[in-house]
Amino acid sequence: MRTIAVLAVAGTATLAEPRPDAIATPGPEVSRFVLANGLEVVVIPDRRAPVVTHMIWYRVGSADEEPGKSGLAHFLEHLMFKGTAKNPAGRFSQVVAMIGGQENAFTGPDYTAYYQRVAREHLGTLMEFEADRMIGLVLTDANVLPEREVVLEERRTRTDNDPGAQLSEAAQAALFVNHPYGRPVIGWEHEIRALNRVDAIAFYRRHYAPNNAVLVISGDVNVEDVRALAEKTYGKLARQPEMKLRVRPVEPEPRAHRRVVFADARVAQPTISRSYLVPSYRTATRGEAEALEVLSQIIGGGSTSRLYRALVVDKGVAANAGAWYQGTAMDTSRLAVWASPRPGVTLEDLERAIDAVVAEVATNGVTDDELARVKTRLVADAIYAQDNQATLARMYGAALAVGLPVEHVKTWPDRIRAVSADDVRAVANRFLDLKRAVTGHLIKAPAAPEKRS
Amino acid sequence: MRTIAVLAVAGTATLAEPRPDAIATPGPEVSRFVLANGLEVVVIPDRRAPVVTHMIWYRVGSADEEPGKSGLAHFLEHLMFKGTAKNPAGRFSQVVAMIGGQENAFTGPDYTAYYQRVAREHLGTLMEFEADRMIGLVLTDANVLPEREVVLEERRTRTDNDPGAQLSEAAQAALFVNHPYGRPVIGWEHEIRALNRVDAIAFYRRHYAPNNAVLVISGDVNVEDVRALAEKTYGKLARQPEMKLRVRPVEPEPRAHRRVVFADARVAQPTISRSYLVPSYRTATRGEAEALEVLSQIIGGGSTSRLYRALVVDKGVAANAGAWYQGTAMDTSRLAVWASPRPGVTLEDLERAIDAVVAEVATNGVTDDELARVKTRLVADAIYAQDNQATLARMYGAALAVGLPVEHVKTWPDRIRAVSADDVRAVANRFLDLKRAVTGHLIKAPAAPEKRS
Repeated sequence: MRTIAVLAVAGTATLAEPRPDAIATPGPEVSRFVLANGLEVVVIPDRRAPVVTHMIWYRVGSADEEPGKSGLAHFLEHLMFKGTAKNPAGRFSQVVAMIGGQENAFTGPDYTAYYQRVAREHLGTLMEFEADRMIGLVLTDANVLPEREVVLEERRTRTDNDPGAQLSEAAQAALFVNHPYGRPVIGWEHEIRALNRVDAIAFYRRHYAPNNAVLVISGDVNVEDVRALAEKTYGKLARQPEMKLRVRPVEPEPRAHRRVVFADARVAQPTISRSYLVPSYRTATRGEAEALEVLSQIIGGGSTSRLYRALVVDKGVAANAGAWYQGTAMDTSRLAVWASPRPGVTLEDLERAIDAVVAEVATNGVTDDELARVKTRLVADAIYAQDNQATLARMYGAALAVGLPVEHVKTWPDRIRAVSADDVRAVANRFLDLKRAVTGHLIKAPAAPEKRS
Repeated sequence: MRTIAVLAVAGTATLAEPRPDAIATPGPEVSRFVLANGLEVVVIPDRRAPVVTHMIWYRVGSADEEPGKSGLAHFLEHLMFKGTAKNPAGRFSQVVAMIGGQENAFTGPDYTAYYQRVAREHLGTLMEFEADRMIGLVLTDANVLPEREVVLEERRTRTDNDPGAQLSEAAQAALFVNHPYGRPVIGWEHEIRALNRVDAIAFYRRHYAPNNAVLVISGDVNVEDVRALAEKTYGKLARQPEMKLRVRPVEPEPRAHRRVVFADARVAQPTISRSYLVPSYRTATRGEAEALEVLSQIIGGGSTSRLYRALVVDKGVAANAGAWYQGTAMDTSRLAVWASPRPGVTLEDLERAIDAVVAEVATNGVTDDELARVKTRLVADAIYAQDNQATLARMYGAALAVGLPVEHVKTWPDRIRAVSADDVRAVANRFLDLKRAVTGHLIKAPAAPEKRS
């Protein structure tokens, strides 16, 4: 009886999709406080409409699963709609629908989040429901096992029937050889099949607790009201005394360029995508992540980017091209470049064209003009983001869930403004190295499956 | 004060080295019994000389390490020479040397083994020492920390200064995306650096126990004497009551061909090596592993093999070529083909030549002549193996350590004889599929390191 649980994650997004990463807001007076039980609360006032966005972020994602139990974080996200002793399965969603609200949930490598948007007078109701299922989840085989089929179907639809997603999954596994970011968020099929109620409840008890969560409220509220409501609901929950530090195996320094070729008859549009192992905001030394953000935009952010202009406009070898940087991550992350060839262009030729663009930036750096243009756009995007309550909530929630402070989001535009051409060239030179990369080729296979070369 | 601890394992062996896998003996009357504390004992009589080989195999290897602690099984192998309360560091090795013996130790993904060879009258002495260090190891920071430096140096010498080993490491990581066989036996450097006494002792207590070990004695002994000595020494040790089943994450079905390119100025001889994910003797359905063994020999076993004849003799494109199959493994394993080009031949051309040989076997199968020749040689090798006490001990030890029965080794020649041409073609067709493979290219880089394409 639940509504959609969206899997909006790096691991399963299509290759060609740029990620709107840590975009920032210089605007609203964001407050943060911590309840006695450890729950962090962030309040983002937005008084333009009498609505409120309520998001709870758990500091647990697919990268926190035990080996062999891939998919468990996401499976539990589904199971969180199965009801509690107080509220039977479906009640929470029904109430949200009845009061005209929206809801959603998603799982990533570093977090699992639950979202509702309702008229402001219903905020307390949401908090009661969400606090109840933070510790009160009741699972039975009767509701767990059918949901596992739902997740398997989700995997079939989103990954196994999508050649691009399959290549992406294989490329990610080749990029992260030691860190659990190499495993798909939705899980390997054979491991999803073996997940059960006992796994889910154990994972839930270990990771779902006020001292492992961030509550983000944005909308037509004031801090004191939110604090009072939070104390009355979440505040009654006990701290989990054995919460563990999140320490994942670290990637070794990469040494060899890797390629992944995925051939499938269903491929409509061939694509090249290359991911480089790069630091995230959390692991980078000062300024490097901001420079990578700017670099990814200069290389592949929209139709004025270098890749687009060289490949699509000037040479006419690509139908589309771009780049993205996954900066909001607990651990070492990815910067990717990608392009789709025009008909008649081989992936080999297209790859050489990409290589030339990347080499040019790494060797000769960027111009003052493009630096200024990209910085202006990134900062403007951060300002536009304030128009969307959910986007704001999501920015803060994701940052805090991976261990970044509120200031990370607040000062982000200033830090982007401070990026110099030298900074960009330095990170390009250091990180856009084939040794750090996996290059994926998505190619159309003949209709009759050909088993070997 | 210890002697050499050899790391003779798949993970660090050079690419071009065929593995003398489960070669079998139809000959000696092998006995097996189990002590009350769970220690399995295998006795292999060999009365040609008054010497005895003593091997203790622990059912723990690098694939049993926790994520983030790679290298711990091998590090512990080194530390096992650091002494006990009864026998200070070096005493065991000194005694072996004094009585004119040899000793060795090695770690693999599935086992860790300790070996001595001495005159038969000293067997009881070995057993006393080895039983003592099975439960009595004493570690201090003073002996652990310098040994960590020794292991780091071993890694530098064997992996980091050897481009072939580096490519092998990267290719293995790309082949096994979920199973711990993807991690190097010696460990990732950054993880070795963090290993310490507490890790080592915890790992030791968890895995070193009579009910997690196999004792193999081959030589001039009789079963009853061995039993009496074993009871008197190992028999006094307590069973470890909390021994866990060895369950590792399983590889997902591979879907995309992967390539790894390692370029280094030190490469003297470029090489192509391709590993396919295939079943091991333990995971295969009936007869598949034996057929893979025969297949690997037909493709690349020596100078009469297809690869050698096509690439080296007929086309003259390769200086050398071969294939190997790693059949003795607990979990899904590898079959590899490799070749080194003659000067002036590109790796691309060489790879096409390899592809043609592989495709021919998978499509058209093998001839009766080559089938008969390879089977005869494999069976003969198993008979010749009886000439070497240590080889015999190693065959049985490795088989039992990965969970195969004594019969696996005994009946191996008969099972090889039973392999048909259809069996070989079937496994070639099923498993020699690029989707299951990682292809590695080892290439000579210009002396000045070139960072990007």
